Amino acid sequence: MTKSIIGPEIKNLIHLLSQIPGFGPRSAQRAALYLINNKKDLMQPLNLALQNVIEKVQVCSICGNIDTANPCSICQDIERNAKILIVVEDVASLWALERTSYLKTYYHVLGGRLSPLDGIGPQQLNIASLKRRAEQGEIEEIILAVNATFNGETTVYYIIDLLASLPIKVTRLAHGVPIGGELDYLDEGTLSQALRARTKL
Amino acid sequence: MTKSIIGPEIKNLIHLLSQIPGFGPRSAQRAALYLINNKKDLMQPLNLALQNVIEKVQVCSICGNIDTANPCSICQDIERNAKILIVVEDVASLWALERTSYLKTYYHVLGGRLSPLDGIGPQQLNIASLKRRAEQGEIEEIILAVNATFNGETTVYYIIDLLASLPIKVTRLAHGVPIGGELDYLDEGTLSQALRARTKL
Repeated sequence: MTKSIIGPEIKNLIHLLSQIPGFGPRSAQRAALYLINNKKDLMQPLNLALQNVIEKVQVCSICGNIDTANPCSICQDIERNAKILIVVEDVASLWALERTSYLKTYYHVLGGRLSPLDGIGPQQLNIASLKRRAEQGEIEEIILAVNATFNGETTVYYIIDLLASLPIKVTRLAHGVPIGGELDYLDEGTLSQALRARTKL
Repeated sequence: MTKSIIGPEIKNLIHLLSQIPGFGPRSAQRAALYLINNKKDLMQPLNLALQNVIEKVQVCSICGNIDTANPCSICQDIERNAKILIVVEDVASLWALERTSYLKTYYHVLGGRLSPLDGIGPQQLNIASLKRRAEQGEIEEIILAVNATFNGETTVYYIIDLLASLPIKVTRLAHGVPIGGELDYLDEGTLSQALRARTKL
């Protein structure tokens, strides 16, 4: 029904919006209408913003981060601690870690995690470049901040192996109970790990 | 923190995305990264789709619907029942009613509802054009399908008054228990109305 009364241009816009994570078909429709109703204030600026990002954003040739500069602003920041490198799966993880502002270091974005079943091997990720950076001698510690999933684990062990011959301390994020998390809602793996790694008070 | 490492172009894109209903700051960030990571498949087509809609979409001069044609495809559809007109607040309501495909009639989009406190009077809505359509003599029934809110009610009574002198039956959508709805979750107003309008089995 809806098909016949919504023109192809609007239908296409709804279809594309519905492919963005967080949107379903219905919320994409609502978003499209909101954009159309706010043409000057939102739809036109958004169109321009997309154009700008399409034209200017690039992948940093050093760390794999996304920025309008190459090398990215983080790799260009000489005030960071070059002895520690944090390895993340994606830029979202990098941003999340930066929000903590706990460590001011450099990053290496893998661009995913190893997943043999999906045909994602070391060649599909920025792993060769990680080894090259590690071999330059300046890095003393590499923190593996990959997501705590099955394929994340595979990636962790692959990288540990890869760096075994180098004099670099390889660490990973602690597992445990999230702050504010209720034990009742946690899976057994996390709880077991939190028990095993319990700390003395 | 995040501010310093995300370039102004990406920051602006995130800011604009976060203004779309359904998105918050965090999900807008996720959406922006997803778009950047799917530049060819999603970001470029979306940019083009927005451009197309900006250029081609217009408001129907008869009913207030949104379409690439003016009059819109509904107003141009001569197979609909011209004796019944459905009055809605917005295009989202129009699309929702079309999805039911229960009635094939024409619509009139008010563009909102009366809300004196927000400075929205009859002049701010497509009410004068509704009266003109009603006066042309072809319409036998006007169904007021405005949202069941306080200001929606105000709008209903204003329109009933406006059309009182015309030989037109004015109806409204039935109130009651939504199909699949649990009584426990319904407000008392709806339940009272459902009791009052109970039907014989």
